[in-house]
Amino acid sequence: MPWLESVAVTVRVPAGSVFDPEGKEGRADFTGELMLRGAGTRDSRALVRELGLYGIHYAAGVGTYFAKFLFSTVSSQIGKGLEIFADIVRRPQLPASHVESVRQGMLQELRGAEDDPGLRLVRELRRAFYPHPWGRPTTGEVESVLRLTLEDIREHYQRYYQPDGTIIAVAGRFDWGELVELVGEHFGDWVGEKPPAIQATPTEVRYRHFPHNSQQVQIGVAFSGPAYAEEDFFPAWAAVAVLGYGSSSRLFQELRERRGLCYGVGASYHSGRDRGGIFCYASTSADRAQETLRVLLGEIRRLEEGIREEELEPVKAGVKSALIMSQESSAARAAVIARDWSLLGRVRPIEEIREAIDSLSADKINAYLQAHPPDGFVVVTVGPRELEVGGEL
Amino acid sequence: MPWLESVAVTVRVPAGSVFDPEGKEGRADFTGELMLRGAGTRDSRALVRELGLYGIHYAAGVGTYFAKFLFSTVSSQIGKGLEIFADIVRRPQLPASHVESVRQGMLQELRGAEDDPGLRLVRELRRAFYPHPWGRPTTGEVESVLRLTLEDIREHYQRYYQPDGTIIAVAGRFDWGELVELVGEHFGDWVGEKPPAIQATPTEVRYRHFPHNSQQVQIGVAFSGPAYAEEDFFPAWAAVAVLGYGSSSRLFQELRERRGLCYGVGASYHSGRDRGGIFCYASTSADRAQETLRVLLGEIRRLEEGIREEELEPVKAGVKSALIMSQESSAARAAVIARDWSLLGRVRPIEEIREAIDSLSADKINAYLQAHPPDGFVVVTVGPRELEVGGEL
Repeated sequence: MPWLESVAVTVRVPAGSVFDPEGKEGRADFTGELMLRGAGTRDSRALVRELGLYGIHYAAGVGTYFAKFLFSTVSSQIGKGLEIFADIVRRPQLPASHVESVRQGMLQELRGAEDDPGLRLVRELRRAFYPHPWGRPTTGEVESVLRLTLEDIREHYQRYYQPDGTIIAVAGRFDWGELVELVGEHFGDWVGEKPPAIQATPTEVRYRHFPHNSQQVQIGVAFSGPAYAEEDFFPAWAAVAVLGYGSSSRLFQELRERRGLCYGVGASYHSGRDRGGIFCYASTSADRAQETLRVLLGEIRRLEEGIREEELEPVKAGVKSALIMSQESSAARAAVIARDWSLLGRVRPIEEIREAIDSLSADKINAYLQAHPPDGFVVVTVGPRELEVGGEL
Repeated sequence: MPWLESVAVTVRVPAGSVFDPEGKEGRADFTGELMLRGAGTRDSRALVRELGLYGIHYAAGVGTYFAKFLFSTVSSQIGKGLEIFADIVRRPQLPASHVESVRQGMLQELRGAEDDPGLRLVRELRRAFYPHPWGRPTTGEVESVLRLTLEDIREHYQRYYQPDGTIIAVAGRFDWGELVELVGEHFGDWVGEKPPAIQATPTEVRYRHFPHNSQQVQIGVAFSGPAYAEEDFFPAWAAVAVLGYGSSSRLFQELRERRGLCYGVGASYHSGRDRGGIFCYASTSADRAQETLRVLLGEIRRLEEGIREEELEPVKAGVKSALIMSQESSAARAAVIARDWSLLGRVRPIEEIREAIDSLSADKINAYLQAHPPDGFVVVTVGPRELEVGGEL
């Protein structure tokens, strides 16, 4: 993207929370946080100071499979950024003196998430839907975070931070030859082996309710769809977009605008490695919750009857315009490159996505929906009282 | 920004919540929401469909002073976008059939905000700090929203939607001559007069506590600073950045990293028309809340003793790098243009901001801080129990 002045770099290491042992949930997250408290010869304060001095904007976040370290800066500073991030990823100090402050921070985040019914719903719907341990919250639980020791953290770091499966994605203004040289210099002599694959156990949950002393009821419904790499992905994704993306979607129009049942409503498609997950949300008042669940499930099921070409057109136009605009941000482009590489083993050119979108038709989508009607729903609610779900499923 | 393919447009009309009459709080917000439910010859569904078909990404939001309507799209669709947005702003249908669904949505948003202690804090700290009615929440209150009628909405629309004081800001790829013609075509014959200025009454609040059945305590401290147009703005802003922007800031380092008192902590500078407001936040557990407030106020007061040149350097580097990167997004640039125009009556060139930042020094900032030590604090807490604040202020 030579028309930009910035460059964005994402480093993904397969060291996420899925590798947390039972009873030590939160270990990967704790490790990622402690890695930012000093690296190479810099202590915590020197590290943030140096990042600041070079105008490097950065973030770290531990996901389910990958630990992610990202930065963006003006393109002349890419070498400095890679040097510092190689220290963070390869030579973190993991200082004992910061363990308690990281722990307190994690505990407070966990307690804050418990206070927020919307966050609780997202957390519990993922846990109920994905096979264990893929649905576990990356942040762990209060009890497990209290239990973690510096030795646990060092063990996680030693075992999981290695180059096999690590992805470095770069977008923006840079010189390819210079980049290859810099990455070689900072990461070329890194060795180690990827840990064995995780054994997953499907959950058996149909409905789970979490009592919360709130005025609103949060309702979540999840079901499966094809993975990003599968051929059916685009038709399935487009059906979900018609169902619940934005204000022209069926859920928005039917639940919010026509019936006034809820304020926040929508659907999202999480395109995973082995399968996709479709997550539908509605947040409503207690007296409307049962009716909202009924209409929400009804709209999801109605997909089987098919969508109309005229519902598809704005979805296609919207995603093509979003594609063009996402091209304009180096950070967004770097994130897409890293995701493609991890899910497909290659980077899908924009042109290929555009063609896949252009070739979508209502007929194609409806053939998919008839063969794969939405089914196997998992329902989670957070609010003052349980709903009647048995009859709805 | 001819290197982009997108264009972003912001329309700001001085029709915000500050104009809501007593007892009818939320009227401006209600109006803005209803304006999106049909405009010109399009009913609600046709409107969202047409926006979708042209790949127009849009949002509307009613702020304290301005009602804002924004869209971005590929640059070839700018004419279509301006045509639709002129209909929304000048010829909304304000349909009776959508009044109840808008009301239900607003009520649910209000109840959701009450469930969220962090949102409650922001809302109540603004209300406690700004002179009335500038600190009122734009969303109104449950009782006032229940009371609003279609007649109220029409009255607000008729009186406040007019061109005097309206700002249209455009950034991205476009042709200036063509833009002027398009804006002339769609907005040129619009007439009307700006309403009289609002009389404001200072609040007398020092401390206010809001009981909330949560595990976390939210603490907010606000105090005044210079307005964006004032000469002292940049030194005051830089001092606040040293205090609480990001992870190298004093608040982050002292409260989170060194003492582990809280997870979320920071400060922000709201650069208003007549004065600036500095808002400091910390979210912590109940048993640490009193100590967190003490340390937080201590760090704010310690600004009077001055900052060091080495604390300033990363702030300067960070904002310069952020300036360059913000240049790369048409939507971000359009928002800055609109803000500059409303607060300064002109657009501040990036070069001028860069010079103002370059000319900052610790001496200059410390001279400002000695002459204007942080004072007149307003404290708000949300959580299970009140804090001892008298002795701290």
